[in-house]
Amino acid sequence: MAKTNAGNFFEDYKIGQVIRHAVPRTVSGGERALYHALYPARHALYSSDEFARAAGLPGAPMDDLITFHTVFGKTVPDVSLNAVANLGYAEGRFLKPVYEGDTLRSESEVIGLKQNSNGKSGVVYVRTRGLNQRDEAVLEYVRWVMVRKRDQDAPAPEAVLPDLAKVVPASDLVIPEGLTFRNYDFDLAGEAHRWGDYEVGEQIDHVDGVTIEEAEHMIATRLWQNTAKVHFDATFRPDGQRLIYGGHVISMARALSFNGLANAQMIVGLNGGAHANPCFSGDTVKAWSEVLDKAETSAPGVGAIRLRLVATKGGAPFALKGEDGKYLPEVLLDLDYWALIPV
Amino acid sequence: MAKTNAGNFFEDYKIGQVIRHAVPRTVSGGERALYHALYPARHALYSSDEFARAAGLPGAPMDDLITFHTVFGKTVPDVSLNAVANLGYAEGRFLKPVYEGDTLRSESEVIGLKQNSNGKSGVVYVRTRGLNQRDEAVLEYVRWVMVRKRDQDAPAPEAVLPDLAKVVPASDLVIPEGLTFRNYDFDLAGEAHRWGDYEVGEQIDHVDGVTIEEAEHMIATRLWQNTAKVHFDATFRPDGQRLIYGGHVISMARALSFNGLANAQMIVGLNGGAHANPCFSGDTVKAWSEVLDKAETSAPGVGAIRLRLVATKGGAPFALKGEDGKYLPEVLLDLDYWALIPV
Amino acid sequence: MAKTNAGNFFEDYKIGQVIRHAVPRTVSGGERALYHALYPARHALYSSDEFARAAGLPGAPMDDLITFHTVFGKTVPDVSLNAVANLGYAEGRFLKPVYEGDTLRSESEVIGLKQNSNGKSGVVYVRTRGLNQRDEAVLEYVRWVMVRKRDQDAPAPEAVLPDLAKVVPASDLVIPEGLTFRNYDFDLAGEAHRWGDYEVGEQIDHVDGVTIEEAEHMIATRLWQNTAKVHFDATFRPDGQRLIYGGHVISMARALSFNGLANAQMIVGLNGGAHANPCFSGDTVKAWSEVLDKAETSAPGVGAIRLRLVATKGGAPFALKGEDGKYLPEVLLDLDYWALIPV
Repeated sequence: MAKTNAGNFFEDYKIGQVIRHAVPRTVSGGERALYHALYPARHALYSSDEFARAAGLPGAPMDDLITFHTVFGKTVPDVSLNAVANLGYAEGRFLKPVYEGDTLRSESEVIGLKQNSNGKSGVVYVRTRGLNQRDEAVLEYVRWVMVRKRDQDAPAPEAVLPDLAKVVPASDLVIPEGLTFRNYDFDLAGEAHRWGDYEVGEQIDHVDGVTIEEAEHMIATRLWQNTAKVHFDATFRPDGQRLIYGGHVISMARALSFNGLANAQMIVGLNGGAHANPCFSGDTVKAWSEVLDKAETSAPGVGAIRLRLVATKGGAPFALKGEDGKYLPEVLLDLDYWALIPV
Repeated sequence: MAKTNAGNFFEDYKIGQVIRHAVPRTVSGGERALYHALYPARHALYSSDEFARAAGLPGAPMDDLITFHTVFGKTVPDVSLNAVANLGYAEGRFLKPVYEGDTLRSESEVIGLKQNSNGKSGVVYVRTRGLNQRDEAVLEYVRWVMVRKRDQDAPAPEAVLPDLAKVVPASDLVIPEGLTFRNYDFDLAGEAHRWGDYEVGEQIDHVDGVTIEEAEHMIATRLWQNTAKVHFDATFRPDGQRLIYGGHVISMARALSFNGLANAQMIVGLNGGAHANPCFSGDTVKAWSEVLDKAETSAPGVGAIRLRLVATKGGAPFALKGEDGKYLPEVLLDLDYWALIPV
Repeated sequence: MAKTNAGNFFEDYKIGQVIRHAVPRTVSGGERALYHALYPARHALYSSDEFARAAGLPGAPMDDLITFHTVFGKTVPDVSLNAVANLGYAEGRFLKPVYEGDTLRSESEVIGLKQNSNGKSGVVYVRTRGLNQRDEAVLEYVRWVMVRKRDQDAPAPEAVLPDLAKVVPASDLVIPEGLTFRNYDFDLAGEAHRWGDYEVGEQIDHVDGVTIEEAEHMIATRLWQNTAKVHFDATFRPDGQRLIYGGHVISMARALSFNGLANAQMIVGLNGGAHANPCFSGDTVKAWSEVLDKAETSAPGVGAIRLRLVATKGGAPFALKGEDGKYLPEVLLDLDYWALIPV
């Protein structure tokens, strides 16, 4: 048993500790094709080299969420193998597009620790950075998870709670070098709606739904080398169900949001996110969005739009929380992100 | 709701209207690998760069049906989102092979309209062209679908019925530039049968069968960015079944036809096709073929063979229609195409 | 029926006969991405071009088992279409890494024949070689299968039993040209354990499990163009079950063995293997390993480790055979291989 990775427990983390996560990954057209096969992804910038070139990029980058899942997946064996719950995200920024042939790895720094009052677990905050083969950061975000203690008698560390921004300021968003939406072809993109057509407070029902199969979420989650047992092993939970990786729901909802937000091309910021309820095979995922904010950027023809993306498994669109302030049982995901859209 | 695409209804189409379909797509080795994973495809010309080079091509093209599905998928949001039925195909020609790195988009021209006598729907005929990044046509075909009206009181347009060829004449087939079967390696191709070994009227039972899973047809259909709800959302039909994309059955049957038609390498013409009955997960698809015609071509060592490809879900091979002239309930597909085969 | 391949029967094989198997295959990043999507594969040498370059290779090769499955799959229509059972493997050696763009084909020589005493079937031994586009051997192995006779009255051939090595001697293993583990990054590889940390006789429970779905094993098996009906057609067996390709279990178990053997990077020898019991959809596959031997190599920093890899569907780790000397019913695979590991 000594050879296998039992994962870290709460008392293993120290403030300031930097973890170099294992298994770098080179991405190719294979990952891109699989992304399009696993999610109804249609944003033109990621689908067409030609469309991306017209937007000033050298070719179509990997979907931003390929980057997110790849970077995230590497952290699982070190951060969340003994996690009881994934509690939140903050201060996420996509810093550089990832292209075919790039090799990604991840590093995390422990920036917060707080033992729970029950003494059995604690909350660990890490700031994770994804790096390419030139050691350039492509993504960074903060995640916090509740992790079990190995030994309940281990002393509680001094509580450190990081001061996290509720929203990434628009001025901190990183626009990919050279990006322009001046020559944007709205026909090819699929919709005519531009930055000016969306109003803060506007809600969009994305209409389409996808019923999820075991094979699909496992194929997707493995693709990101995410190893959490609970996604793959039907004997792991007493109820015999495989819990679907929360990121699978993020990608499904983002892809479904094409219908109404086809021009919200690139994700550049991740302000926050909650996996409100578990998703299982057989659930039919639908999505709706709400415009939370808008901002200008310095790139030609490029605006920023802040969106709430909600994934549900049934229920009416636009319903989010009950009178008790808790997420409704059919809500799977409540994500807050910034995207770039032509003005 | 104004932001999402509700699709076109019958009264939205006008004769001569040209629709530039959205979401261009760059294809790579990823799409090719997925095609081989989703269908038992073994035609050597699409499997091996070396085999394709020996046949005078720069490398293995994408399977012709990758091109078909990609071009077709883009038309769905504009042409068949509100379709009641996909009625037929005609005058299909593959005009240029598609290679890794090519970017495909689609355009359709409305060439026929006829309102149904019930006033609730009508038939729309479109001629669709797939174009690569050099605006060269790679594929064209006519498809007609029955589309609902939004407003039953909308006036009927003047009926225009296109004059469609029952069969693409062999002389109109486009042979890829440089193609030769002079150095054809029958061992590597998998069978010894050449053009001269097939007789008009000959029937071939392809023997093998594949039982279809939900995850597979959804992965395939998404890969082509086909968004029709009925393929993905188990809550969409009253019976809770997801209707399998007809093109999935085409590819499955074509791949199964390798066993007996391994040398019918390239599809160059699509004369007609009917999706005779719906296919659902759990069905076991088998296929049989009938030689309908043969023709010579000007390319060295290359002959043309016209084939009927029938997909079934059970039943005896070679049974097609009942005494009433209707397709038997187990028949899924009746496709009429031209392929290139060594003489 | 004359056009389709009915496969070879026992009396069709002759000692010394060489079969050139059909359908060469060019592999790309697509095959690699699919491998990572279908199996929880994380060995860094196959995941990262950068890691592979640091190890002296031009880039990340295809996983050795991609090579194995691709070469093996081509033999199925000629060798095992009428096989009753896959009996064993021996003298397997990986001779050259396979990279993106390589085209693989297979050849087999019949090296042994022995009719069974029942007169209904016999055992066929073939030595199969995988060749790349330069006709360089990339893999060779011996496999023997029990094959039905077409005609029970066909005379028995003279029995020839090849003299097969029980184990590939370490001195016969082929180390890829230029391979070095001198600059090996154990953090990125995922574990700290090196050659010297493993003891002969040591057993490792790989802990993780994967519940298998129909869609996944069919996608994988098709990817290797393996056409055996029993894997795909639910109407083929009386019990309606699709038998899972034994190679799927090999890849699943090898990938699971990362957890405890993350540094056993490359498979270079295949000493033997038994598919002890059939695997079906719904089974949860787990794996354990035993260190059988260790050897030094001439490559810098590179040691060899001989491992038994056992896949199970439940039961306690390290249980293999019952008192009767037969495999326990939960054992799926017992594989004996050599891998390269940093010293």
